[in-house]
Amino acid sequence: MADIMRIQSDIESLKGISEPCDAGTTRIGFTQVYRQGADFFKSRMKEAGLAVREDGIGNVYGRLEGTEKGLPAILSGSHLDTVRCAGAFDGIAGAVCALEAVRMIKEKGITLRHTFEVVGTMEEEGTRFGQVLLGSKFITGVFGEKELDAIRDSEGITLREINRTYLPANVCPSYRESDEILSFIELHDEQGPVLETENIDIGIVENIVAISWLTVTVTGFAGHAGTVPMPLRQDAASGACRLVNHIACHTTQHYAHSATATIGKLDLLPGSSNCIPSKCIFTVDLRSGKMSNIDELTAFIQQKANEVAKECNVDIEVRIDSRQDPIEMDGHLCSMIQESCEQLGYSYRTMNSGAGHDAMILSARWPAAMLFVPCIKGITHNPEEYVFPEALAKGTDVLYQTILALDSKA
Amino acid sequence: MADIMRIQSDIESLKGISEPCDAGTTRIGFTQVYRQGADFFKSRMKEAGLAVREDGIGNVYGRLEGTEKGLPAILSGSHLDTVRCAGAFDGIAGAVCALEAVRMIKEKGITLRHTFEVVGTMEEEGTRFGQVLLGSKFITGVFGEKELDAIRDSEGITLREINRTYLPANVCPSYRESDEILSFIELHDEQGPVLETENIDIGIVENIVAISWLTVTVTGFAGHAGTVPMPLRQDAASGACRLVNHIACHTTQHYAHSATATIGKLDLLPGSSNCIPSKCIFTVDLRSGKMSNIDELTAFIQQKANEVAKECNVDIEVRIDSRQDPIEMDGHLCSMIQESCEQLGYSYRTMNSGAGHDAMILSARWPAAMLFVPCIKGITHNPEEYVFPEALAKGTDVLYQTILALDSKA
Repeated sequence: MADIMRIQSDIESLKGISEPCDAGTTRIGFTQVYRQGADFFKSRMKEAGLAVREDGIGNVYGRLEGTEKGLPAILSGSHLDTVRCAGAFDGIAGAVCALEAVRMIKEKGITLRHTFEVVGTMEEEGTRFGQVLLGSKFITGVFGEKELDAIRDSEGITLREINRTYLPANVCPSYRESDEILSFIELHDEQGPVLETENIDIGIVENIVAISWLTVTVTGFAGHAGTVPMPLRQDAASGACRLVNHIACHTTQHYAHSATATIGKLDLLPGSSNCIPSKCIFTVDLRSGKMSNIDELTAFIQQKANEVAKECNVDIEVRIDSRQDPIEMDGHLCSMIQESCEQLGYSYRTMNSGAGHDAMILSARWPAAMLFVPCIKGITHNPEEYVFPEALAKGTDVLYQTILALDSKA
Repeated sequence: MADIMRIQSDIESLKGISEPCDAGTTRIGFTQVYRQGADFFKSRMKEAGLAVREDGIGNVYGRLEGTEKGLPAILSGSHLDTVRCAGAFDGIAGAVCALEAVRMIKEKGITLRHTFEVVGTMEEEGTRFGQVLLGSKFITGVFGEKELDAIRDSEGITLREINRTYLPANVCPSYRESDEILSFIELHDEQGPVLETENIDIGIVENIVAISWLTVTVTGFAGHAGTVPMPLRQDAASGACRLVNHIACHTTQHYAHSATATIGKLDLLPGSSNCIPSKCIFTVDLRSGKMSNIDELTAFIQQKANEVAKECNVDIEVRIDSRQDPIEMDGHLCSMIQESCEQLGYSYRTMNSGAGHDAMILSARWPAAMLFVPCIKGITHNPEEYVFPEALAKGTDVLYQTILALDSKA
């Protein structure tokens, strides 16, 4: 079984490597604080007996050489960067638990046929350069030489420029050849409340969900709050709220656990308490494991928009701003994770990931899988994010077991 | 019949006396532009043969002396100030039409027993000093010496200080004794769409509506848009929109022409498209001729808030910020206005005023009445506010007829 104290100690240490912030951790890519965090993680990997290196975009690796030369490596880890005032687990947990799995392997005197690599990826959150999943995009080649000059932070500094001051002297290429890697397994906290609510140890991710973003614009006619009788109004707020209510009710009733619809931003114009709103603009974030659910929901919203427009005597425009297909995790790896859970006697369920992760990018090149551990109330991107150390230990056990299975069978 | 050209000419002249603004008129109290507007109106009153004076707060009067000394004066007019980028009619129309009524009286060689006074009131809109109905509050004594020092504009200048530079040398007291005034009649554009929609010439105001302002706070729990299944959410936006929809539907169905409910301001927090809102704060502006309707609606909102809180698993707090009783116009004056309409063959209806007016303040001291003329689409506080000159002429005819009736009967 994984060592709870070691996991907790690594999490706590990394939690403390932060820019000043009221609570929680702020460790943004390519900063001096990030350098401290990456160096700490490298030192812990060295202590575990791994050969440590850093690549040309700041991803850090710890390598446990396999016995059979020429076999591709099993890769596991997650990102080391955080959003501003983050919790201590998002990303970090995946890197720390992969390292703990190595320590378990070494302590048990197990030798692997395949090389095993722990990875701590750079700038998954995109806080510094506005590009999420940056490290894994350089590993897979989605980004390369061109992006080093094209991507700039808010002060106009390019990636190439920042790398000159940020990176240590000897770095390896960030791009990985296809035959270098066997598969990628990412442990992450769920960032949602499902596992906690259902009291389940492990979530096995089947899909990283499809995402579509819509902007809905309701146009009415401004008027004095006191002088326009209700039936003569063209009230953008009434129209918008009626449509939002339809979207929320319909999605909850018909897609309770298969899709989400979130209205996160809603603006009324002119926005005076004594003025009938002339305009309301709101966003809809649709997510589902199946693109067909997103398409159905989009059609439903368009149809209800037309109905509400007539009922409320307003114009409603529904614009699709983006539409991204779901990304399936590797079925074979998922089965292996499931078998590991069964062997260990840990409860599990399959689920989708509603958030994007490095595994999403790496899955385009190599078989990839994710396992989730429960977090409290689903709180994330918040200093109050919390994962019980016992939950991390169970996740590490499953990761360890799956690495062994993969090593013996592949 | 009133002279359409004269009315139109006065309206156009005052429309042109404005601070620079893209369209429409900006003439805010106590400014140099307001001085020009007040002086223009005083000169037009002088040309009509009235004895002109200005009081200690900048209200301007034109007096047509009655034949029977000691009788109180009939007062008519409205405000000469505007909001920023206003139309040309709100307030102005009432002053201009009262002046036109005087010209009609003089041209027909009619002598009145009572003195008739045209009044152009100061700062009804409250744009400069943040105090609406300022001029009429000084006439009635709601405001006095104390407020001259207490009320300051955004730069900290008091009314007393501004008056030193704004007012001409010889001003009369702004406070009017009870026995000086018989009654006040204010002509105003409707600022709503009812008269235009129903093709009616004159609105006779029965009540200036009761107003209550509520603030509703919906508290949920923030979460990632992709990771929290719909049934596990505590979504402040869903709760708020469901409640807004209840309020709008219920008020439209059960209080179509007897009350209004306006949600003019609604803020979502944190307000990110990919975050389930943790909080939603919105305003409710309730208005009705009957306080009982406001009370019923407030109770309905509270009851529905409790239901929605349970349904959506959120907390909802409904706070009553203000509650102002309706103000009844004088029934006898209303009957006289109605008789005038009938004599002239003009269509009319009784209605409530959803907005506050000087008549609201003056009614506390003297019998007061209001007549509305139709405006296009109910547009007001907007450069596109428009009243047909013919509608103003009909309103003036009714005002003229009512003054004569009042003079002979009182």
